[in-house]
Amino acid sequence: MTATNKKILILGGGFAGIAIAKALRNIDYNVTLLDRNNYHTFQPLLYQVASGGLGADAIGYPFRLIFRNQKNFSFRMADVKAIVPDENYVETNIGNFPYDHLIIATGSTTNYFGMKEVEKWSMPMKTIPEALDLRSDILQEFEFAHYTKDAKERARHMTFLVVGGGPTGVETAGALAEFKNFVLPHDYPELDKELMKVYLAEAGPRLLAGMSEKSSEKARVYLEQFGVKVLLNTAVTNYDGSTATLNSGEEIPTSTVIWSAGVKGQLVNGLPKESLSGSRYKVDLFNRVDGYDNIYAIGDVAPMSSDDYPRGHPMVAPVAVQQATHLAANLKRQSKGQAMKIFRYRDKGSMATVGRNKAVVDLSFASFGGFFAWLIWMFLHLMLLVGFRNRVVTFIDWTWNYFSYERALRLIVRTFDAEEMAEKRSVG
Amino acid sequence: MTATNKKILILGGGFAGIAIAKALRNIDYNVTLLDRNNYHTFQPLLYQVASGGLGADAIGYPFRLIFRNQKNFSFRMADVKAIVPDENYVETNIGNFPYDHLIIATGSTTNYFGMKEVEKWSMPMKTIPEALDLRSDILQEFEFAHYTKDAKERARHMTFLVVGGGPTGVETAGALAEFKNFVLPHDYPELDKELMKVYLAEAGPRLLAGMSEKSSEKARVYLEQFGVKVLLNTAVTNYDGSTATLNSGEEIPTSTVIWSAGVKGQLVNGLPKESLSGSRYKVDLFNRVDGYDNIYAIGDVAPMSSDDYPRGHPMVAPVAVQQATHLAANLKRQSKGQAMKIFRYRDKGSMATVGRNKAVVDLSFASFGGFFAWLIWMFLHLMLLVGFRNRVVTFIDWTWNYFSYERALRLIVRTFDAEEMAEKRSVG
Repeated sequence: MTATNKKILILGGGFAGIAIAKALRNIDYNVTLLDRNNYHTFQPLLYQVASGGLGADAIGYPFRLIFRNQKNFSFRMADVKAIVPDENYVETNIGNFPYDHLIIATGSTTNYFGMKEVEKWSMPMKTIPEALDLRSDILQEFEFAHYTKDAKERARHMTFLVVGGGPTGVETAGALAEFKNFVLPHDYPELDKELMKVYLAEAGPRLLAGMSEKSSEKARVYLEQFGVKVLLNTAVTNYDGSTATLNSGEEIPTSTVIWSAGVKGQLVNGLPKESLSGSRYKVDLFNRVDGYDNIYAIGDVAPMSSDDYPRGHPMVAPVAVQQATHLAANLKRQSKGQAMKIFRYRDKGSMATVGRNKAVVDLSFASFGGFFAWLIWMFLHLMLLVGFRNRVVTFIDWTWNYFSYERALRLIVRTFDAEEMAEKRSVG
Repeated sequence: MTATNKKILILGGGFAGIAIAKALRNIDYNVTLLDRNNYHTFQPLLYQVASGGLGADAIGYPFRLIFRNQKNFSFRMADVKAIVPDENYVETNIGNFPYDHLIIATGSTTNYFGMKEVEKWSMPMKTIPEALDLRSDILQEFEFAHYTKDAKERARHMTFLVVGGGPTGVETAGALAEFKNFVLPHDYPELDKELMKVYLAEAGPRLLAGMSEKSSEKARVYLEQFGVKVLLNTAVTNYDGSTATLNSGEEIPTSTVIWSAGVKGQLVNGLPKESLSGSRYKVDLFNRVDGYDNIYAIGDVAPMSSDDYPRGHPMVAPVAVQQATHLAANLKRQSKGQAMKIFRYRDKGSMATVGRNKAVVDLSFASFGGFFAWLIWMFLHLMLLVGFRNRVVTFIDWTWNYFSYERALRLIVRTFDAEEMAEKRSVG
């Protein structure tokens, strides 16, 4: 490969960002990846970090390690401030980065739909620090429930409301139910296990809207078998830190609301309104951002619509990865003077796990649930993890969790202030 | 076992606290352990968390899990405010805890010997959050070194000064040298490896003062082979966040000083001056605190002196554990109306690891270093870890680290603010 001064700049190291950086291994460009963290996060397993089944290190992997042997690649830990498209550079907290091609892969962030109180009091789960914070919070609720002498308060602190019936919501509610069934009775014998309530609220008429109706229904049945109260057609309209209000007017006293009800694109400053579509970037079938021929957006932040997906592709990892490798191939074609090809998503199916021995899988030719689906889910997620070490450790933790019915990773790594907990979130 | 209302209260869940709680399994008392964290910390391996070799979860283990099957035991997460000895209760942030016997096992905390500036700017390593913070800091120094265009600043950010030549200091300096030799060249190819300097300053005339002179000397030779600059008879007299001043007057420009130069007892309010000896509790040969017959102190916070140890026992885990099991036996004797026995420490030897394939071991009959010592160190520390899961995961991580020359657990989980880093610690 000849030395080059041509630059491809990638913003964001999620699934899309690392997939395209890897696929650009053999291109005659310098490839630079910017991310505010120094590690890639395997988001599908964040809920397992939150529920004490996996360590943070198992699902995070340093970029410098992933790309250690890729000669044309460099990583910089940076906060991106703005794109300056007229001069082809990106402004960050550690200086400016010029580019010939810019790839925006900034992904999505939690969407509270403008509800400020909900944003203030509920807990998101899109990053490793957020998942660790949620883990500490869940355990602190039980310490507080143990501490308080007020029966109503105890019940409130042992009530968990998960909002959003997508895969994350379903998996989180399932994990909380497992905590109730297998961990709580042993570790807090002083607390009445039945006081712990897990609610899952979904605004639509079924869980896992992206999957088949059969799978939605199975997931609901499994969750209810585990003891989760599934509330369909139920939106959370407010949460003041002590009581969640539902669209029915009903109120749920709870000190923990986990918000997985929506995401929005994570925009960068600098591109004009005409290039945007809501909170995301308008792209054509080559993932080019509207109005530019050297700026691309891929993954969650690019709502590409096509004949097959007139209302846009689903915001899921397989779309992000396929767009990434497709765009990498197009950039190679371009650099050889060849014509680019349009993107077409190949949907290989989808899956979600609910809990012990229970998952649902939709393939193009079949749809099934139960133990076999759960084994497939485990195997695929293991294989998708970055790094051999993480696969081995995760495999061991999962095996251990399975046979011991245990969730051993339960360090509370933030301050526990009983008075503050009582005050901040008391009903009165 | 008959139901009882008699209460033994243990303050602190370090080596001493969990050893005595376990040893009191068959006593006719209710045993309550208070700790500000919900987990036990395996302190000897904190430096491996800081240097990215192990995850935090591998060396922390929830108390509720350790004591899950112990019927007469309960754990409460609490900050202890004061002992009220006249009324036999302890005041905490979650209420008062009455006791019949009180066991103080609060251990030790970092001692800066009154140097406020050093305390403000240097990094301690006595807790898991501190070790994680140090890990993030080390990695951020390299990100900053990569970012800055000022050669002097780059060198300063790549200089690490470890203060204190005890086991923690030796092990930390060794781990930093391994980072320099095996990780830096691959992950930061843009940085000149030779810019990274690791200093180890020890105020006394030799490293590992608690071990044989032969082992001290071997550890020094190993460290220097790894590239550590060992400074003996060297105390750090000040550190302003950018330059460390030595007792020789010499200055070392560095943005990271790791402080492992001393510990002091962690006292609780409430006992009179007459019961104290400096920052620790005066105890007799039964570990009874001076002036009380139902308050005991064990481990680092109890500087018991005896004929064998006229200047006090060493502040190490084996002393803490032996005092704990001995006191438990004495409490059982007491409850049967038998006489208590005096404590006698059985020194089984000591060891420290320096780095890859290198450790030193002192036994009563032999003293040796090198690969075999290193294997023994690894094996013993694996066996001493609490919980089977932690042993397996640590074994895998160590095997992985050994063969890959890698330290994969390198997530920076705190904010990186380049401007702040430059400002806070710039020389000018």
